[in-house]
Amino acid sequence: MSNISIIGTGNMARAIGELAVAGGNTVEIIGRDQTKAADLAKALSGGTTTGRFGAVPAGDIVIAALLYANVVPVVAHYGEALAGKVIVDISNPFNSTADGLAIPEDTSIAQEVAKTAPVSASVVKAFNTIFGVVLSQGRPLDVFIAGDDARAKAAVAEFIETLDLRPLDVGDLNMAHWLEGTGLVVMGLARHGVGHFDFALGATTAA
Amino acid sequence: MSNISIIGTGNMARAIGELAVAGGNTVEIIGRDQTKAADLAKALSGGTTTGRFGAVPAGDIVIAALLYANVVPVVAHYGEALAGKVIVDISNPFNSTADGLAIPEDTSIAQEVAKTAPVSASVVKAFNTIFGVVLSQGRPLDVFIAGDDARAKAAVAEFIETLDLRPLDVGDLNMAHWLEGTGLVVMGLARHGVGHFDFALGATTAA
Repeated sequence: MSNISIIGTGNMARAIGELAVAGGNTVEIIGRDQTKAADLAKALSGGTTTGRFGAVPAGDIVIAALLYANVVPVVAHYGEALAGKVIVDISNPFNSTADGLAIPEDTSIAQEVAKTAPVSASVVKAFNTIFGVVLSQGRPLDVFIAGDDARAKAAVAEFIETLDLRPLDVGDLNMAHWLEGTGLVVMGLARHGVGHFDFALGATTAA
Repeated sequence: MSNISIIGTGNMARAIGELAVAGGNTVEIIGRDQTKAADLAKALSGGTTTGRFGAVPAGDIVIAALLYANVVPVVAHYGEALAGKVIVDISNPFNSTADGLAIPEDTSIAQEVAKTAPVSASVVKAFNTIFGVVLSQGRPLDVFIAGDDARAKAAVAEFIETLDLRPLDVGDLNMAHWLEGTGLVVMGLARHGVGHFDFALGATTAA
């Protein structure tokens, strides 16, 4: 079981929070809006607590469940309060038409978080290829993860397993750029070939 | 059933050729090396023919089963011989360490093919996220496709269905860049989280 803090009170925060509580993890919800955070913590139950925005989070793993444009500013705001933490970036930096990324080719939100966070923190990209609506159904799903720190990836993988999901390592943090691109492919499939949002991308091996 | 020409005599040419013949399509194999092309055509049997490299291909759909660096030069060499054809680019422009793309951020091999091919030709990106070893097993797999021409995509989708594979439209040809990036993710999974090459990426819907 893991000690998790989730910064954010939106759909992804709720979906991951529900799975995290069901998986027996200790969960803390943090929001700029303390009332929203308290409401979500109450809805999650299972002893979920709330933390003060900007203070040292209670969890060893801190999930930034924020819109992509807010991730780096929030990590910068936290500063040394994130020292030693494993920061999980789940964002998709889609452009306004969701057919390209709103960031340069040589980086990703996760890599920008790594540049911004304390040197003692580790950043892992995860969950961005899964729609919240699918995640909240909790069925077996593959969660692609990328990061430079093997111990941080192992910690996040262990957490993901408590959610009854399958963590699949894609490689170093520079792969976060391509995981964010894979988020675009998932969006393209939802709009075109699949035609709905109730699916997930996964790796299937021969039966 | 479709009329297919495959330019190339390597593993992907063989894997797609085998499925194409099994699916009842008319198949032509084209290689710079006429002997290799004849050998592959003989191995595929099913009435597979060979064509002369650089001449107008017999197929309505022309699959460039080439190393990525050769795709644009070969399309340029063909020139007007590809007028009116549906050109399928299956390449992965991996850099030497296969953790980045060897092309600029604002394009893809498929988009470069579109710039190079006759205006009456249409380009579709397909098959690049599937390892040849997996494709040759022929089990149900998702084939992601991208292109600007709906009729060309429909023709390629119809061909893919004769292979007992599932075509899934990802969107316009600008998505080819992100499909090529998804190829990197597949490679990363093979090296890390999955640990072998005998898997494919697919979209799964709730049971």
